[in-house]
Amino acid sequence: MSKTVAVIGLGAMGLGMANSLRRAGFQVRACDARAEVAQEFAKEGGTACATPVDAATTAEVVVSVVVNAAQTEDVLFGETGAAGAMRKGDLFVMCSTVHPNWSIALEQRLADLGLLYLDAPISGGAAKAATGTMTMMTAGRPEAYAKAGRALDAMAARVYRLGDRAGNGSKVKIINQLLAGVHIAAAAEAMALGLREGVDPKALYEVITHSAGNSWMFENRMAHVITGDYTPLSAVDIFVKDLGLVLDTARATKFPLPLSATAHQMFMQASAAGHGREDDSAVIKVFPGIDLPAAET
Amino acid sequence: MSKTVAVIGLGAMGLGMANSLRRAGFQVRACDARAEVAQEFAKEGGTACATPVDAATTAEVVVSVVVNAAQTEDVLFGETGAAGAMRKGDLFVMCSTVHPNWSIALEQRLADLGLLYLDAPISGGAAKAATGTMTMMTAGRPEAYAKAGRALDAMAARVYRLGDRAGNGSKVKIINQLLAGVHIAAAAEAMALGLREGVDPKALYEVITHSAGNSWMFENRMAHVITGDYTPLSAVDIFVKDLGLVLDTARATKFPLPLSATAHQMFMQASAAGHGREDDSAVIKVFPGIDLPAAET
Repeated sequence: MSKTVAVIGLGAMGLGMANSLRRAGFQVRACDARAEVAQEFAKEGGTACATPVDAATTAEVVVSVVVNAAQTEDVLFGETGAAGAMRKGDLFVMCSTVHPNWSIALEQRLADLGLLYLDAPISGGAAKAATGTMTMMTAGRPEAYAKAGRALDAMAARVYRLGDRAGNGSKVKIINQLLAGVHIAAAAEAMALGLREGVDPKALYEVITHSAGNSWMFENRMAHVITGDYTPLSAVDIFVKDLGLVLDTARATKFPLPLSATAHQMFMQASAAGHGREDDSAVIKVFPGIDLPAAET
Repeated sequence: MSKTVAVIGLGAMGLGMANSLRRAGFQVRACDARAEVAQEFAKEGGTACATPVDAATTAEVVVSVVVNAAQTEDVLFGETGAAGAMRKGDLFVMCSTVHPNWSIALEQRLADLGLLYLDAPISGGAAKAATGTMTMMTAGRPEAYAKAGRALDAMAARVYRLGDRAGNGSKVKIINQLLAGVHIAAAAEAMALGLREGVDPKALYEVITHSAGNSWMFENRMAHVITGDYTPLSAVDIFVKDLGLVLDTARATKFPLPLSATAHQMFMQASAAGHGREDDSAVIKVFPGIDLPAAET
């Protein structure tokens, strides 16, 4: 009989991961703060659960896909937390972007309860999560990987193993977010200068995406600016949070990050101006004195 | 009979462009401040010239590939400047990275002499210049393009036409340099944080180059850091200059560029510490408290 996996948090990423696990033959018990999302998931198989503790019952592996460390604490140790139903030797897979030191401490806290842990932040967006082709940046004890078995490969096309204790998964994720955040803000700064100078934004996009100035984020996010579409795929406030985590991580060892600090201020400026829930490319709205391309109709 | 083109400045880019023109069947008259470089070029065909005015004699198109605006001024209007030999209707192709307003003014100054002008900065590096596959970011009058004929396509795989007057070529080049400079500094900041946190730099490189945090510059330049090889392909001082031009361009209209300003300070810090002539990836040496990978032996 196939292994039972609980997926807690059915947002854009978690729902895709739950579906990927089900397609790979796992028994999936899913729950979300919005009960109707879990009900909808269960229509095609799997089990809708009301709470984390319910989802974790009979599951050997619990995958947590929530927004941050505080929510993960609640998933595990809240009133209806999964820890209440997990048995010795079960595995908790932590997929959120968190402070690496918090993840390192969580491994020890769970070990004290006899539970296994994987530090396993994810990357790639909703589309890749839906097709099981996202990336996982993982670290943990060999026993934890053994317990996970095929579950990681069912969810991700690339599972990076970065260490035999928790920490390096979250560290590498934090560093990826450093680059992603700075690159989005830099793309906005470059496009803003082009608009100020009267360069056609589509021509600028065409040249840059074929030149050494290109980044994954320039190519992806400036397409939103050119079409004037700030529907949030990932919101400004996510980078207020994630660049904040980047800076907190470095501050713990008093390490300077001048570009991250500058980019963080730009995202906070955008958020304070009322753009926090728009697409992160809306950081370009911090630049005064330019006319942004209007929404295409 | 095929058109004669003068190439002035046989550095890493100019030499490749002169060879590409010769391969495409043009008569090439070349000169460089280092006479022996021109002599070496002429061994396989073409003509070595001692000065810009000598090179421009009988040439309909003069391609200038020098470091900056001051050198370009000298190429054109110095004691042995090319303008002394150019005839009405001849074309000057300006390939340096310069302040866009200077390029716009140069078009007018040459027009007053009856000369055509193309604002045509280049990108792609020595290897692409050698194979005629670099990029040109061009703007100029239709008559200037007509005069250039096949010469542009002989030198570049992509010739972007960005406007029918000078300016947008240099503007787009400046914006590319903004992104290139910020991305190199951001790559250094990310790699430095990884080293500080004890992450294996090769593992970090592998993950980032397959993730949304990637940039062309991260992928290219962090390979130098990992192998501890700071042999200058492009030097720190190039970005002291180019990010300076970016900031000068924006200052002309009082436009703020927070990330460019921060990255410029990082390159100046590296230069002042004695790394100005090392590879631009040596900007990572501004970060204290880390051990960089040693040179591979």
